[in-house]
Amino acid sequence: MTKELITAAVLIIGDEILSGRTKDKNIGFIADYLTQLGIDLKEVRVVADDQDAIVEAVNALRARWTYVFTSGGIGPTHDDITADAMAAAFGVGIDHDPRAMAILEAHYAKSPNMEFNEARKRMARIPFGADLIENRVSSAPGFRLENVHVMAGVPSVMQAMMDAIAPTLKTNAQVLSETIDSGLGEGLVAGPLADLAKDHPNVVIGSYPYMREDLFATNIVMRSRSREDLDNAVKAVHDMLQTLKGQKQTQV
Amino acid sequence: MTKELITAAVLIIGDEILSGRTKDKNIGFIADYLTQLGIDLKEVRVVADDQDAIVEAVNALRARWTYVFTSGGIGPTHDDITADAMAAAFGVGIDHDPRAMAILEAHYAKSPNMEFNEARKRMARIPFGADLIENRVSSAPGFRLENVHVMAGVPSVMQAMMDAIAPTLKTNAQVLSETIDSGLGEGLVAGPLADLAKDHPNVVIGSYPYMREDLFATNIVMRSRSREDLDNAVKAVHDMLQTLKGQKQTQV
Repeated sequence: MTKELITAAVLIIGDEILSGRTKDKNIGFIADYLTQLGIDLKEVRVVADDQDAIVEAVNALRARWTYVFTSGGIGPTHDDITADAMAAAFGVGIDHDPRAMAILEAHYAKSPNMEFNEARKRMARIPFGADLIENRVSSAPGFRLENVHVMAGVPSVMQAMMDAIAPTLKTNAQVLSETIDSGLGEGLVAGPLADLAKDHPNVVIGSYPYMREDLFATNIVMRSRSREDLDNAVKAVHDMLQTLKGQKQTQV
Repeated sequence: MTKELITAAVLIIGDEILSGRTKDKNIGFIADYLTQLGIDLKEVRVVADDQDAIVEAVNALRARWTYVFTSGGIGPTHDDITADAMAAAFGVGIDHDPRAMAILEAHYAKSPNMEFNEARKRMARIPFGADLIENRVSSAPGFRLENVHVMAGVPSVMQAMMDAIAPTLKTNAQVLSETIDSGLGEGLVAGPLADLAKDHPNVVIGSYPYMREDLFATNIVMRSRSREDLDNAVKAVHDMLQTLKGQKQTQV
């Protein structure tokens, strides 16, 4: 139980997210995916299509967390600069990779009305020393450099790349989770819940307010790697809510 | 035209986003909102409910960009630590703020079955020297410390706070934008588009691939603060696409 915690960061690269033009769906997908695998996502950053910004972010993240997953900027156009930025971040060279060229040549050979032109060859530019990540949707590969996994931004392609990467990742024991909809406002559950959290140190307890028909209510989410600890916390929360609902009826 | 560019960063605070349990909607909303105002969003970070992580992120972002907008962690529960983290980041004290206490007292006085208890009083904890941000949805205020705007995580509340903040912000000339759906794959438009981008330095030109019925196509987005420069780029892209479509028909 004392072994190193496996952690991750996500780096989304793209002006279109920052301008609001494209609404990101990749953060939520990767967050769910890593939670299912048993890897703790600790930080997300979104940066522009700007080499300095990408280099600084990936160097900060890869030094701190077990894995980094990037998304965006590996297509064929002039604003796709992620591969070059990664080479700069790692201080390695970059060129058309023979493995990637072979994959793309085979792909375009099957599409006689799509020429394997200079722009498309850009997608074979891979930093020296990287492993390729398979792309079962549209062939052009991602790549892994040390602990950094560089993926496409198009959600269906990114998701296929995550499936290709998953078997290679170390994971923690999976986090178990239980949610209880308290039916009560956060201000009412907050006090007793803080005391309860102190009594259950191996369970991370969060409370998430939401609005329903103009009233605020609260979901209480408990997460733990121990089934027994989690069950004890669930029982304690149920007892707490029963007490609070009794008090509330008296109060009204 | 040489005056300082007005920039911004967004900091989302919350374990529930990193675990995937809650899918963020605030990044996209704030991105759209700032673009409409004419403020350049440059960076987004998502961090956990962890004081060190919040302090480090907000200090990095507020030193670099004109404005920082944070969302999450200002409710009444034990895991709402944003106000304390902001006080730590700025090196100032924090206590129950008389203005915030008055707002919340009036709010709960109108709700006889909701006691203004200790947990709810936590929402009046505001760092010394901060201005309050009005919350027309559920009263509990956000606050501004220097260039950092601290807002709620619940989308409807955050959005009301953005409306309260907007009139106080400096903005750039608004960015104009035009989108052309090329109907062509990114690999075909990439080469000529790169040349075109060089000829239009005052227009930021992005290309965004998407999948439609299993075929990749590409939206070309042009952004500029000059109507004339933008119109010239739009015309050039239309001319380029006409040429490419002519070539493609010949090719097939």
